[in-house]
Amino acid sequence: KGDADAGKKKFYTCTGCHGIAGYRNAYPDYPVPKLAGQNEGYIVNAMNAYKAGERKHPTMRAQAESLSEQDIADIAAFLSQAK
Amino acid sequence: KGDADAGKKKFYTCTGCHGIAGYRNAYPDYPVPKLAGQNEGYIVNAMNAYKAGERKHPTMRAQAESLSEQDIADIAAFLSQAK
Repeated sequence: KGDADAGKKKFYTCTGCHGIAGYRNAYPDYPVPKLAGQNEGYIVNAMNAYKAGERKHPTMRAQAESLSEQDIADIAAFLSQAK
Repeated sequence: KGDADAGKKKFYTCTGCHGIAGYRNAYPDYPVPKLAGQNEGYIVNAMNAYKAGERKHPTMRAQAESLSEQDIADIAAFLSQAK
């Protein structure tokens, strides 16, 4: 089960692109998905797809590979509650 | 440019899976992404990726193939404003 508090810390690096509502998005012209409030299971599936190379995004694949199953669960728990 | 009102009508069929917050999601256990409030450009890119087969989801590919560029722009405009 994901721990949202731990997830918040682990998500810090990701805010560079995935600016949560109110954060300045580092790549305004790059259409990055908004993740705050996203479906928890969808996030876990998407991260595992990046990890397995089923979803093809170099940066995301590298990020996903650096995260454990628990990290991903924590981040998904945090994001699904983020506003 | 997308027309959100037209997009709302065109999105009606999609609510079966992508229940907007408050709608009962037809597949509660199926981790479908929440689209309300999603980044407009991201939605357009995702739909084109389904259309081109770069993103592999049978239902989504079929849906994307049935939509014109204008349909996709309208739906993206609607979703990015939906609460």
